[in-house]
Amino acid sequence: MYPVGADLFWKDSGRLADGREIIYYDESPGLGRAKAPDLRPLGYRPDGPGAADGTDGPGEEPSPSGLRWDALAGEWVVIAAQRQDRTFLPPPEECPLDPSRNGRLTEIPADDYDVVVFENRFPSLRGAGDPAAAAGLLPARPLPDGPLDTAGVPGRPATGRCEVVCFTSDHDASFAGLSPRRVRTVLEAWADRTTVLQDMPGIKQVYCFENRGQEIGVTLSHPHGQIYGYPFITPRTERMLAQARGHAAAGRANLFDELLAGELAAGTRIVSCNEHWTAFVPAAARWPYEVLLFPARRVAILPELTEDAREAFCPLYLDVLRRLDALFGVPLPYIAAWHQAPGGEPVARREFALHLQVLSIRRAPGKLKYLAGSESGMGVWINDVLPEDAARRLREAG
Amino acid sequence: MYPVGADLFWKDSGRLADGREIIYYDESPGLGRAKAPDLRPLGYRPDGPGAADGTDGPGEEPSPSGLRWDALAGEWVVIAAQRQDRTFLPPPEECPLDPSRNGRLTEIPADDYDVVVFENRFPSLRGAGDPAAAAGLLPARPLPDGPLDTAGVPGRPATGRCEVVCFTSDHDASFAGLSPRRVRTVLEAWADRTTVLQDMPGIKQVYCFENRGQEIGVTLSHPHGQIYGYPFITPRTERMLAQARGHAAAGRANLFDELLAGELAAGTRIVSCNEHWTAFVPAAARWPYEVLLFPARRVAILPELTEDAREAFCPLYLDVLRRLDALFGVPLPYIAAWHQAPGGEPVARREFALHLQVLSIRRAPGKLKYLAGSESGMGVWINDVLPEDAARRLREAG
Repeated sequence: MYPVGADLFWKDSGRLADGREIIYYDESPGLGRAKAPDLRPLGYRPDGPGAADGTDGPGEEPSPSGLRWDALAGEWVVIAAQRQDRTFLPPPEECPLDPSRNGRLTEIPADDYDVVVFENRFPSLRGAGDPAAAAGLLPARPLPDGPLDTAGVPGRPATGRCEVVCFTSDHDASFAGLSPRRVRTVLEAWADRTTVLQDMPGIKQVYCFENRGQEIGVTLSHPHGQIYGYPFITPRTERMLAQARGHAAAGRANLFDELLAGELAAGTRIVSCNEHWTAFVPAAARWPYEVLLFPARRVAILPELTEDAREAFCPLYLDVLRRLDALFGVPLPYIAAWHQAPGGEPVARREFALHLQVLSIRRAPGKLKYLAGSESGMGVWINDVLPEDAARRLREAG
Repeated sequence: MYPVGADLFWKDSGRLADGREIIYYDESPGLGRAKAPDLRPLGYRPDGPGAADGTDGPGEEPSPSGLRWDALAGEWVVIAAQRQDRTFLPPPEECPLDPSRNGRLTEIPADDYDVVVFENRFPSLRGAGDPAAAAGLLPARPLPDGPLDTAGVPGRPATGRCEVVCFTSDHDASFAGLSPRRVRTVLEAWADRTTVLQDMPGIKQVYCFENRGQEIGVTLSHPHGQIYGYPFITPRTERMLAQARGHAAAGRANLFDELLAGELAAGTRIVSCNEHWTAFVPAAARWPYEVLLFPARRVAILPELTEDAREAFCPLYLDVLRRLDALFGVPLPYIAAWHQAPGGEPVARREFALHLQVLSIRRAPGKLKYLAGSESGMGVWINDVLPEDAARRLREAG
């Protein structure tokens, strides 16, 4: 166990019964939570190259999980068929994200926690960390080697890592209800996992995110987020990097810097801000309510945020989330997505701007935004809410 | 009125009370349906350059509809705020897509119809057809002119066209229940509208599609589809064209031809086929149930299909839709999307392959596939259903 940051956070790690890693981020020292043993009779799950190439261990059927190359879109698709049977809306008394108390054994062996991260029991990507997993790294766009070259079963190994981040042991809380102190601990956990995962063999890009609300398919209501380590640069990140390169090649300043400066100058889409962060609705918002949070000083990844920026993030993000919940008087379903530069890409690190995107599919009380023919078929988003109106409503919801 | 095809289809057009165009595709001659007057007291809606630049007519407030450039993604986004109040799940006795009967006036003035197409009353794109609208044509990727150059209100004019296609006057029918004869009439209507719209000033790409099911946001249950005329090449089409160009540049045969040949050779993902069409689950399917229908002989757009291919399409598509509905014993929510080459693009016409994509978000009884953090944030699709299993289930559902 060792202190992290300004003696504010203590980190310790252990293993679950099936070999998965669990990491506690405590807000006080000496708690020894990682020593709590996982007493569940889970079969040991090897998480090395064996897992990475699609087998679940000796004597078991090969898992069909794998990556397929979509030759028409030029993108990787993850096929994760074994996840069909994952835990689905369990009753509160069976929540696997509660701490283990009163004889009920959950995913978290300790009887309490502040923030805890562990490997997902039903991962769509796995096996990163083993040196052999580095062979699973994939180019964003392979040279065409036959449109069906990855069409075998199981396809390329779906190497990577899927982790769960529990924000609080309080089953009935939500991120918007956390204290700024707790948000800081979560931010430290995200930054720390980014540092660890981006150097792990088999991972090219680290993605921290939260899905909130049954309306977007959340299957566990306990406040939690996820971290994915992808073995390739994701399509969205690749597009942003290409746009930034094109912008620079045209002799302009950094694309993200210009965008933020433009929003600050326009002012009409600003939702909330402080000295270190600006929250605004993007001019070309795709979702009825979408807010981007940019730090004033551009950095590429979470670990590069200064102490001041970290501390200033907490109240601002809580302010934004509370405004979103206040919009319709009921908790808003949302996705919160941290956009970071991929690891090991010096040019990307120089040009990319870390930012948080929060989007909601609710467009009105009782009405959701669906991805229908234009979005799903052609990739053309149609947004029914004027971004300037969305920003105004969020300002007024404060 | 004039006959279309082999004396099988008769087409006639008129205008609705607000000036919108309506086109009847009749299966027998001399019905005179287009002569039925629209008796509703709708205000005249000018559909020329005035509409295209965001005004709804003299004395009205400018409409906020417009196109915004998403500088981070390099894509256009349609902002269509006036559609928030569009007709939403009306009771059956108020269905606006029924024919006008017994004194109830609907969007279709005639007292019956076979297939009818008309301009959408709540369009997200409008104003195409006027010569001035050609100025609204947009490059897929404009040179960077400041990331916020389209961020004003209302942004660039959302020029284009949105049409509704009613497949039958029977409110309670579904596409899967149509006769092959009727499917042929619908196909002729799609092909005819493609021919007309792709030459219309202000339109670069024609998109025929159907959204079916409340689960994907359909607000009218009467069997109908839509046709969009976009003023730009859509992101999905642009990606496919880039992939096809890259494939050709690597000295390979046509990408689509290779893909289809590969699927026929593999065989494991074929759902159904006849002499002129093959229906298969793509190897890198993004959706739990996704089927692509390719004609055996590649063409770029619907009007180029031969008589034989048109006739053979009807029973095969019905077969696929019925298999989809049989999967879970309840009507499946789906999106059916016709992918066509953009008009006026000779290279695209030479390389692109017309195909129909049918996708469903249902992954199991009572369970939908949601676009959550990985899909919405990073553009990485995770599919819980193995494509080979999906194909096998669809074959067995026959």
